[in-house]
This record gives sequence, C-alpha cells and structure tokens, in this order.
Amino acid sequence: MTLRVDLNADMGESFGAWTLGDDAALLDVVTSANIACGFHAGDPNVMAATMARAVEKGVGIGAHPGFRDLAGFGRYRMQVPAATLANDLRYQLGAALGMARAAGGTVRHLKLHGALANMCSEDAALARACYEAALSVAPEITIMVIAGTAQQRAAEDLGCNWVGEIFADRAYNDDATLVDRRLPGAVIHDPDAAAARVLEMVQEGAIIAASGRRIPARIDTICLHGDTPEAVGIARAVRAHLETAGVAVERFPV
Amino acid sequence: MTLRVDLNADMGESFGAWTLGDDAALLDVVTSANIACGFHAGDPNVMAATMARAVEKGVGIGAHPGFRDLAGFGRYRMQVPAATLANDLRYQLGAALGMARAAGGTVRHLKLHGALANMCSEDAALARACYEAALSVAPEITIMVIAGTAQQRAAEDLGCNWVGEIFADRAYNDDATLVDRRLPGAVIHDPDAAAARVLEMVQEGAIIAASGRRIPARIDTICLHGDTPEAVGIARAVRAHLETAGVAVERFPV
Amino acid sequence: MTLRVDLNADMGESFGAWTLGDDAALLDVVTSANIACGFHAGDPNVMAATMARAVEKGVGIGAHPGFRDLAGFGRYRMQVPAATLANDLRYQLGAALGMARAAGGTVRHLKLHGALANMCSEDAALARACYEAALSVAPEITIMVIAGTAQQRAAEDLGCNWVGEIFADRAYNDDATLVDRRLPGAVIHDPDAAAARVLEMVQEGAIIAASGRRIPARIDTICLHGDTPEAVGIARAVRAHLETAGVAVERFPV
Amino acid sequence: MTLRVDLNADMGESFGAWTLGDDAALLDVVTSANIACGFHAGDPNVMAATMARAVEKGVGIGAHPGFRDLAGFGRYRMQVPAATLANDLRYQLGAALGMARAAGGTVRHLKLHGALANMCSEDAALARACYEAALSVAPEITIMVIAGTAQQRAAEDLGCNWVGEIFADRAYNDDATLVDRRLPGAVIHDPDAAAARVLEMVQEGAIIAASGRRIPARIDTICLHGDTPEAVGIARAVRAHLETAGVAVERFPV
Repeated sequence: MTLRVDLNADMGESFGAWTLGDDAALLDVVTSANIACGFHAGDPNVMAATMARAVEKGVGIGAHPGFRDLAGFGRYRMQVPAATLANDLRYQLGAALGMARAAGGTVRHLKLHGALANMCSEDAALARACYEAALSVAPEITIMVIAGTAQQRAAEDLGCNWVGEIFADRAYNDDATLVDRRLPGAVIHDPDAAAARVLEMVQEGAIIAASGRRIPARIDTICLHGDTPEAVGIARAVRAHLETAGVAVERFPV
Repeated sequence: MTLRVDLNADMGESFGAWTLGDDAALLDVVTSANIACGFHAGDPNVMAATMARAVEKGVGIGAHPGFRDLAGFGRYRMQVPAATLANDLRYQLGAALGMARAAGGTVRHLKLHGALANMCSEDAALARACYEAALSVAPEITIMVIAGTAQQRAAEDLGCNWVGEIFADRAYNDDATLVDRRLPGAVIHDPDAAAARVLEMVQEGAIIAASGRRIPARIDTICLHGDTPEAVGIARAVRAHLETAGVAVERFPV
Repeated sequence: MTLRVDLNADMGESFGAWTLGDDAALLDVVTSANIACGFHAGDPNVMAATMARAVEKGVGIGAHPGFRDLAGFGRYRMQVPAATLANDLRYQLGAALGMARAAGGTVRHLKLHGALANMCSEDAALARACYEAALSVAPEITIMVIAGTAQQRAAEDLGCNWVGEIFADRAYNDDATLVDRRLPGAVIHDPDAAAARVLEMVQEGAIIAASGRRIPARIDTICLHGDTPEAVGIARAVRAHLETAGVAVERFPV
Repeated sequence: MTLRVDLNADMGESFGAWTLGDDAALLDVVTSANIACGFHAGDPNVMAATMARAVEKGVGIGAHPGFRDLAGFGRYRMQVPAATLANDLRYQLGAALGMARAAGGTVRHLKLHGALANMCSEDAALARACYEAALSVAPEITIMVIAGTAQQRAAEDLGCNWVGEIFADRAYNDDATLVDRRLPGAVIHDPDAAAARVLEMVQEGAIIAASGRRIPARIDTICLHGDTPEAVGIARAVRAHLETAGVAVERFPV
C-alpha cells in the first residue's frame, strides 16, 4: 500500500501594502495552505488572491485564524475569554468560507495560528472551545492538530474530522513536545537532514525525538515554513525526498 | 388583497465595551435587522448576541457591511478601489453567514451602511461592484436598496433578488432624493406624522415628496431608526398605524 | 496640619460613535483625570474634548495607557515583550502630551490601565519597564501607583515622582491586595460605607483590610469609578464626607 | 555663496511583522527622514528604531502623519471632518515628539502623507487646518510643503516655519503640478537624468516643467523615494551629482 502524506504551510500573511512570505513558491510545493483570516494577518484582498492561486494550483484551502492582534502578528498570548474566542473564530472562519466560495473553492480545514495554537496545544478545554466554534459554522470541516498535543485530544473528544501534523524543521523531546527554540539543535536548518527525518517519521508512523525515541503518532500532514529562502529550500527537499521514496504527496482526503 | 410590508432597522452596532442603540426594543418592532459586520461597528460577540435574539424573535437577519473605519463608524466617504471594496464586502458577508449559521439562522439580505450606502445610491457602477461581490458569496441573497436610487438601478441591472426601502422619518425631494438634513423639515420628529405618511406611501405604492408629488416606487420595506428614544417611538407608531390600517407587517418574502 | 487628598477617576473612555461613562459629572468631583490614550479606548477627538474640560475645571490631567486592544478594552492580559510595551507606552504618553499642550494643559501623571495595571501590580520588573519608558519621555511626570503593590516598589526603586492610590469601593485583604471580585463584600456598593471607610484610611494613613487590620500606606489619591450611576454617587459621597471632616480635596502637588 | 539643499525620504513604514523599504540604505543618503506615525504605517517599535538610527546618522527627524487607515496605507482619500483630522494630527505628532525625546532626538519637521498630502496640495483650507493643528502641539516645527501647491499657500498664510520640496523623479506640468502617473514620462527612472534635472532646478531656484518652462520656487529639499532598489539608486545619484557640483547637501536649517 502506498504511503500518502499532505504538506501544509501558512500563507496569505501579507497585509495591505506589506508583503510577507513567498506564497507563489510555496504553492508549488505544498498540498494544503493555511490562509490567515484577517485578525493577525491577511486582509480580504490578500485572502482573495491567495485562495484564487490555491484553487488554480489544486492546493487545499484552510482557514488559519488567530488572535485579534495585527501589531503582534498573533504571537502574543492573550487571556481572551473562551466565549469571545469562540465568536472570533466563527467570524474568521465564516469570512474565509465566504472568500473561498467567491474564489471558486472551499475551506477544507482549520488550523490555529501562533500563540493561540500554542495555548491550545497545552490546554484541551481551550482547544475544544475553538474547535466547537469552528464546527458550529462548518460541521464537516477537518481540524488540523499538532500530533500528540492537547489539540489532538480535544479533536478526538469531539469526534470530529481531524488530521495530525508534525513539523519538518523542529526537534522533538521524548514526550512529543518541541525542543525549546533557544536550545541548540531545536531548529533543523539542513534541508537533507530535515527531509530524511520527515521520511523516516512518515514511514514509521511515529514522531522521532532528538534522543531517537519513537512516539507513535498519526501523521497526516507535514508543516513546512516558507518565510525564509532557507525554509522554501527545506520545503522542496522534503517533497522531493518523499516522492523519491515512493510516498504520495497529496491533499489529505476529506 | 392584503398589503404587506417589512420594517427594517440597523442593529448590532455596539463594539467591545461600548453599547449603542436599543436593540432589544427594536427587535420587538422590526421584521428585518441589518446587523453590522465588524468593519465599522459590531464585533463577533455583538454579532452573535444580536443574531441569537433575532432568531428567537423571528426577525430576518441581514448583513450590514460598511467601510473599514471603526473610528468614523463608516460615516466618512473613502475612495477605496472597487476591487478592494468588493473583497471587503465578501469578507464581511462571509463572516455574517458564518455567525448566522452558528446562531441557528440565515442571512436573508444585505444592506450597505453609512457613507458606502450614500456613495452607492449615487453611483450605480460602485453599487453594482458591491452587489456582485455579495452575490459571489451568496447568490440567492436579497439586496435591500434605497428605492429610486442608483442602488436600485444596479440591482435591477444584475437581475438579482432585491427589495426597495423608503425612510420613515426623512422628507423627500421631487426627484426621490432625500431633503438635505440641514433644511427645515428634512427629518420628521413627530411619530404620528411619520406613521401617517408611511401608511400613505405603502398604500399608494409611491414615495410622497414634501411637495406632495407622488413618485411610484417599489416599497417592500420601511427603514426605521433606533438610536434615540424618539426613534424607537416613531418605530412603534409606524408599526401600530400600519397594522391598524390592515397592512400586514412581516418579513419580506424570499 | 490639614490633611490633603486627591481624587482620581478614569475618563475619556469613549471612542468614535460610542460613549462611555459620565465624564461631565465626574469632572465636578475628582481632582485628577486618568485619560485613555487611544490603544484600549479614547480617540483623539475624545482626548481633546476631555482634556479641554479638565483644563476648564482645573482637574489634573493624567495619561492612562493600556494594551493595544480596542475590542477587549485593555482588559485581557497579553504577553507583550517588555521592550514593545515600553515603546507602546512612550507612544501613548507622547500622544497625550501633545494633545494636552494643544488643549492648554499639561500631563501631570501617568496611571496604567486594566490588565496591564494588574500585571504590573504583581510584577515589579514589568512595572519598572513601563515607568522607565514613561520617564524617558517625561522625566518629571508623577507615576500613580496602587499603594502597597509591585507598582509602588518599582516606582520607589526608580526614585521617580510617585503618588499612592487606594480604592474607594474595593475591600482589601490583610496583605493589602484586593479581595477577589467574586467573593461577597469585595465591592462596596453603599456610598456612606465607602465614604466613611475612605475617610478613616486617609486619617490613619493606612489601608484598612476587611478584617480590620491596618496596613500603613502612602495614600495620596483615592480611585473612584464613574461608569455607573451608583459609582458617581459613591464618588460624590466620598468627596462630601472628606470635606465635611476637614480633609482638603485637591490635586496632588507636583 | 554655497548652494545648500536638504534631501528627504519617507521612512519607518514597516509595521509589526511586516518590513517595508530599505531604511538603512536611505539613512546614508538623506538628511531628513519623514517617519510614519502609526495611523497608516509605523508602529511604536518601528518609530523607536528608525528614530534611533536617524539620531545616530545625524539625519533630521520629521513626523509623517496620515489618515487612520492601516489597510490602505493612507492612500485612499477620506472625507474626515477637519476638526477630527486636526486631532488625529495632534495625536500623531505628539506621539512622534514623545518617541523622539526617548530616542535622544527631536522632531524638526512635519510632512503629510499619501492621500492626505494630495488633498492638502489642492485645498489650502484643509492644509491650514492640518498645519494649525501641528503648530498647536509644536509651535516652532517646520512644515515641509510641496512647492507651489495649496500646501505652500497655507503655510505662507500661517506665517509659520516652512520649507519647500520638489520631487526628484516626477515630471512637472507648466503649472507646477505633477504629470499624471499614467502618462508617459511622468516618472523618471534614469538616475542620471533625475540627478541632472534636480541639480538644474536647485541651481536655478525653479521647477523645470517637462516643457522646459521655469517656474520660480523655493527649493529647500528634494523628495526621494526608497521603496524600490531603483529608487535607492536614484537617491544616491542625486546626492552624488549635487555634491560633485558643489551643492552642500545638509539638513535644512531651523
């Protein structure tokens, strides 16, 4: 049986006069695009243009909502009440659904952004509040969760459609959490090393910690970055390496 | 045959810690609510609460998008390119659709807000760009236009669903435009006078100018205001007077 | 020797089309106004109007900066890096200084708002970063601190001008922290009770805890609220009671 | 007598996670920096960093306020009431003054941005309202006006400090207005051509229209652009050419 895996990256993170990321390059590599929804990045013009290109390239569209924090790019943790957060997510997802329809596409998945994603990977109740909110707007949507975290537990509890993701360029601890960015080796900069490790994890169906420990995980999609030339290089290397090894790189099924 | 008419008012114009308007009182009078979509007023919490109450009261939900201008409440004219405006409208309508679905309702109509509405009542091309954008997100939506203006012409040209509105408390010129607010008699403050005039216009199927001139018009809905105690009084008087005269006050059909 | 005390309240918290609080009533009671600076509330029009009225009434003007969070009114805790926060404070204070100069006044003090104030009453390093930022813009400004908290310690460490405040309507624990709002008796609703307690604290130079315990404190100013009719009543009662007892109610000296 | 001229460019137009322009390169060429003030671009971190570098390089700091329009970068015309605009300018200038003081510098001049600048170059009353607002905050500030426009007339009428600017890369009509960007030759792309023309205008004390016509003008400063690699090349060519010809390139005197 052929192994299959999806590749995802954040996209549509420009705003007004400001451009961020090399979306055009990434859209040739990934199979799913996490598109910012206007609260931390992305304005309606950017969303429209990014979705139109995704439709053209056959890349799956995902909503990528975050905190209402344009100045901080959604990277600051905020203690927003869960009910308010739920409405913020409904709003952003609704907006994405509307933009996608106008672009001739559909929103297949939802992935949380930045500090909100981090908080939800530690707090299943918060993750559940977010995902329930999304499901109240789009019951069939697939939730993209960080494998092995509270995000995954929340999605499992809800019994909704979900896919699990691992990171192409981040080292893991033995408990499947990410190695602190400040520690040496936390971020993998070498495309070949990243690609080889990703292939191994996909083939073994397990997260491979820095120690070599295997942690069985549902790996449906690989998170790639695209905000640096290096990152685009890693993305391409990962895709090429997977395909050479016979892994089918394609949109996760819905 | 029974005459029927819809009553609409702007609602959901609070934001964060700030409250505006007496939505609770208005929801007992109107049959359609034009709900702000977050760009000039209304945040996701306000939208959710307003839509939930509208669903409960059987009041039709409309999206009421405006310029991206929170500080100016969407009241300043802005020369935003039509393509950008179109995406801003898609975004706001999409958000409203998502919020409505989560609230167990649907968005039946779209009505433009403030300076954008004024500009579109003078410029059919701009109105058309806005309405086409809305229809690209929700093809069956009903566009609520100011009767006799470029808004109406744009909707007619598009061949979409539309309803025509008149104002309960504004005097009309002989060409169906509104009398300048700065002129005496431009705004009708007396509930009985407003109610009698509205009934007459509905019965005659015509806008009645201050001069007495009749301008045939499609009058599907009456625009009421609710941001002053006086305005709520006028709203109630209009409804009571219509019902007493045997006019059925109900949501416009879709 | 005559006892003297300042009375302060938050003001200028309207924004655009939205009005909040009864500033006109409060300006007849307080001697210092903490004026929002545009990030969590207050726009330039509101600041200008509030400062003009403060100048007219002889009320001292203070800058009241908060987190960049209009939708949350600065009430959500945000993990903004201290260096960014410092620049946000410089910006807001600079804006307030400019507006005050145009209004014919000066900014005498700075008081932190909402969640930022709460965080700084627990974290002296954060408070210090905020106060140093303010002093880098206005070296002679007086910092208004919540007596007995990390805010006070930070101001003492900096050796800057500062005044200590207590709350007119909040019960205190034995360690000078506020009783949790969710507990009975945490908020004092009775104007006479509030006024009597404030007078006692001013006369004794001590915070009086709910248990009756005295905690010596520098009490330069009393924080009043003005966002409810009840709160304005308490403010008036506090002022009347202090004056009747011979306490001079006047702007803190600089 | 040595001819002297100032070179200015817009700067500090990044925001949050988004970078715009090559400020580092420009700061080695210009003598005055027009720094965005947060309403259309520039956040407090960006302002602080840009001002610190300007101080270090001996480049004069100017406030560069615009419309409250982050999504449109202040490029859309907005019909904001003059009194509101005045307060928006006071606020932005105050913020810039505060940031500059913290950075060890001072704000020497003010130059309007984008659509607001365009509107004020056509409407002397609007320009006057803006400049009066700025002078109410900083009476000694120098207003940088587009030579020969309503901006200049407003500054002359006010009798305030002002300097006149011409554009390095834009062709002029015979009435000193700019040739419409859509017409051929409206924008000068060749560094040598731009540099030669600027030198000629500075030496003759006149704007030289595309037709060759001379329009006497007070030319205190040359506006350079820096948002493209080409623009930085033009900036460098203009400076080199002026210096080679013996024109002193230095900050306009105050």
